[in-house]
Amino acid sequence: MDRQADITAMRRAVELAARGLGATSPNPVVGCVVTDASGHVVGEGWHQRAGGPHAEIHALRAAGVLARGGTAYVTLEPCNHTGRTGPCAQALIEAGVRRVVYAVADPNPRATGGADTLRAAGTEVERGLLEDAAEAGNLPWLTAVRTGRPFVRWKYAATLDGRIAAADGTSRWISSAASRADVHRLRAEADAVVVGSGTARADDPHLAVRGVEGAVQPLRVVVDTEATAVRPGARVLDDAAPTLIAVAEDADTPLADVVRLPRAAGGGLSVPALLDALHARGVRSVLLEGGPTLAGAFLAAGAVDQVVGYLAPVLLGAGPTALADAGITTLTEALRLDITETAALGPDLRITATIQGA
Amino acid sequence: MDRQADITAMRRAVELAARGLGATSPNPVVGCVVTDASGHVVGEGWHQRAGGPHAEIHALRAAGVLARGGTAYVTLEPCNHTGRTGPCAQALIEAGVRRVVYAVADPNPRATGGADTLRAAGTEVERGLLEDAAEAGNLPWLTAVRTGRPFVRWKYAATLDGRIAAADGTSRWISSAASRADVHRLRAEADAVVVGSGTARADDPHLAVRGVEGAVQPLRVVVDTEATAVRPGARVLDDAAPTLIAVAEDADTPLADVVRLPRAAGGGLSVPALLDALHARGVRSVLLEGGPTLAGAFLAAGAVDQVVGYLAPVLLGAGPTALADAGITTLTEALRLDITETAALGPDLRITATIQGA
Repeated sequence: MDRQADITAMRRAVELAARGLGATSPNPVVGCVVTDASGHVVGEGWHQRAGGPHAEIHALRAAGVLARGGTAYVTLEPCNHTGRTGPCAQALIEAGVRRVVYAVADPNPRATGGADTLRAAGTEVERGLLEDAAEAGNLPWLTAVRTGRPFVRWKYAATLDGRIAAADGTSRWISSAASRADVHRLRAEADAVVVGSGTARADDPHLAVRGVEGAVQPLRVVVDTEATAVRPGARVLDDAAPTLIAVAEDADTPLADVVRLPRAAGGGLSVPALLDALHARGVRSVLLEGGPTLAGAFLAAGAVDQVVGYLAPVLLGAGPTALADAGITTLTEALRLDITETAALGPDLRITATIQGA
Repeated sequence: MDRQADITAMRRAVELAARGLGATSPNPVVGCVVTDASGHVVGEGWHQRAGGPHAEIHALRAAGVLARGGTAYVTLEPCNHTGRTGPCAQALIEAGVRRVVYAVADPNPRATGGADTLRAAGTEVERGLLEDAAEAGNLPWLTAVRTGRPFVRWKYAATLDGRIAAADGTSRWISSAASRADVHRLRAEADAVVVGSGTARADDPHLAVRGVEGAVQPLRVVVDTEATAVRPGARVLDDAAPTLIAVAEDADTPLADVVRLPRAAGGGLSVPALLDALHARGVRSVLLEGGPTLAGAFLAAGAVDQVVGYLAPVLLGAGPTALADAGITTLTEALRLDITETAALGPDLRITATIQGA
């Protein structure tokens, strides 16, 4: 086979998969490219939303009879189970696809087995092409499957010296318009956006996605332990997106619709309980936009998978820092990360890093 | 003329100039390439140390009679004055060079005029080729000539959340071995390395260059206002490099050899007085390795030209920050910079930025 053509087709499938980010939970994002018997692309598809057709079905429909004798490139092992849609392995067999190339095996015990079904029907099956790229594209969902809690990406914007505001509290704008637009992309990719009471009180944030075409609005979540930060009329309570206010079990709140969670020993709400509650609501990826206190609580709970820092070329020398107490007192206890990407965003620098051992 | 050959030769001259960084003050770094009449490189040179021959002289000596009818590419306008060495413009004329291409005009009033002298002798003269690259290569010296004080590069190493140590003071090692080796390169390029009393007291630093072949040791400077941080036996007082301890005019010190400077109104020593004292000793570039207090004083005095941050992919959530009070209380007063380079150093990220309007 033409290896370069295989790679080109799978790379396209990875691109297609990314279009579903933020819209498919609790399902993964998946992309699929179908070629005919002579290697020409005859169908493309991606999983667009939970409950809708899987990527393979979209691509097979586009290909029609041209799929017969061809190859299907899929970023994730075709499913074998009948959920809200029929099993994709069966659909590929019925379409007469001769060969299926997939990047990542399905870790979901309810869906796995598609490769075996295909092989049993005489379909040639290959696994692992562009596995790293496809894994990276599905990182939130894969992390959620492996850990049983939502993937958590902590986002912060700070000066070169680590400040999120000046000494007098002013913070508009430390980061650039390009960075702020990029945060809306991160929100659109997430199932839920989480802030704490400090941010809610100081900024009255809206937390909905603006300026991202076709975005599915994330669930807006405020961790308001004492039920004192979000008052009726808060911007986060409008109808631009769904909202969840999490309060302590014993908190006295004027709001009708809240979720009550146990307190953490060190103050605030239990982070694992919060993530459980979100997972139960179908949330598989969280964008943590919390201030220093909530970020510290998440990090101390081992509940951050990825850090995205927007670093503005600004020096302040005073003011609150991006991260407060994470339970670390000496350097050997420090959280070590791996920088996976740096990118220029206008004058700013975006640094993406993953927690080691996460 | 062959423009690409001109660019190649000047690029080489810029490379050669960089070899002199840290060794030529109070002179600039300069590189020179001489080609023969048919365009072949027949001589290379760079200014290696103050008092030694200029770049042009080295290159002309290497070229010998082959320079006749050829071209000299020089990163800085050839000098016209007789200092410790004869004027280069005259040497180029005597060597029979037909054409001189230089990148940057000499801003030094005592040395300028070389281009005019060359033209008067019938030599073809061109200015401005790779001017930006040559300027960048000579940034410390050019800044010192323009401002009348040494160029100051502030270097810090911090975590992603801006900490230089953990809550208990432990800081070995936040940054990687690759970053620490790179700092020795910065020291080798500087004429002086400056720290404050906090760093001297906490770390007893040595401040000399290690592991950089051919490095000229910088002057080690400790700003020890009260004369309490550097005690006899301190590592900085060994004979690995020259050392200057700066104390307040009224400080009581056990050390024999100190420089006494006026106090600043806000505490510490006057930064302008310190820089004057260093300039008078021939220092044209300073690597400020000070802790947060000294860095804040330099920034508040408008005495930092460039910032080099080594950012380690580590989170601490507590501990001292890279920068303390720089006199900034609200965001509109923030120091704004331009990021000019980012580079990976092992696991770390090095960010280079210049102060806007500096």
